[in-house]
Amino acid sequence: MSSTALDGALGLIREVPDFPEPGVLFRDISPVLADPAAFRVLVDAMAAGLPAGTDAVVAIEARGFILGAAIAYASGLGLVCVRKPGKLPAVRHRVSYALEYGTATLELPEDTIRAGQRVAIVDDVLATGGTVAATRELVEHAGGIVTGVSVILELAFLKGRDRVPGVDVTALVTT
Amino acid sequence: MSSTALDGALGLIREVPDFPEPGVLFRDISPVLADPAAFRVLVDAMAAGLPAGTDAVVAIEARGFILGAAIAYASGLGLVCVRKPGKLPAVRHRVSYALEYGTATLELPEDTIRAGQRVAIVDDVLATGGTVAATRELVEHAGGIVTGVSVILELAFLKGRDRVPGVDVTALVTT
Repeated sequence: MSSTALDGALGLIREVPDFPEPGVLFRDISPVLADPAAFRVLVDAMAAGLPAGTDAVVAIEARGFILGAAIAYASGLGLVCVRKPGKLPAVRHRVSYALEYGTATLELPEDTIRAGQRVAIVDDVLATGGTVAATRELVEHAGGIVTGVSVILELAFLKGRDRVPGVDVTALVTT
Repeated sequence: MSSTALDGALGLIREVPDFPEPGVLFRDISPVLADPAAFRVLVDAMAAGLPAGTDAVVAIEARGFILGAAIAYASGLGLVCVRKPGKLPAVRHRVSYALEYGTATLELPEDTIRAGQRVAIVDDVLATGGTVAATRELVEHAGGIVTGVSVILELAFLKGRDRVPGVDVTALVTT
């Protein structure tokens, strides 16, 4: 994979101002996913960035599922899907965390993380880091160890990586 | 891949009675996904079942994303993610359909399906077929052609495949 191919894939991301609310610049990865070569390059680049010794991928609902599933498959790893409330029939642990307005909750399925297992968290964007920090708490509550966080885009000015100290954060694009 | 390996993977599905409501037997695929070998066998079996000539995978939020992304990657195809309302900044088409109680809406992202493109729809379960029929409508409205529907589990007594006539429906398990 050349960096040119990756640049081309990332160039397909569509920037949409004021979505989902005024002042937010939304990055729509739909055109990247729909392009077979770009999708593969994107997944392979994220898979290549997983820390050595990672033995499972933890994906965050819902865009994280898309990337996490493909990365886990490409890497020969298992996949753990952290979900919004009410979706899982058997929950290992649940954590609520603050958003700008209100709170959000994530749930870890039962019997998915083993004690001592080394996992990487995958999502599309790292913003304030609240979601990733909550996911780390879920993993650690089940006895797992978070080796890394892999995202397409890091919004560095929001300092999200400060919320997961000691974890290797990898982003394909930093802005 | 042997059928024994696939049987073993499918044997990891956890059956949970009365979830999300009384009388429903929920199939939780979390343990399959978390097992690297089982996850791979499951994805490869679904990928092998795509009709010849398929050139994109359409995945339905949210469990369909997990399977669809891995199947698209494994098959070298592009991925189109059909979403619940309010998630996409650029919508090509939107369809609402009846559920047992109330309605649901799905949206197709802009610039993802080309006229004449042959796509397979991927989801976890085929039940009454309302979601798959709605997704087919989205694809056809954009000029695409649905070649097949691929699911892990078909609940045959609900006759969901009758809602997508002329489409090749493949399920790893039929009950």
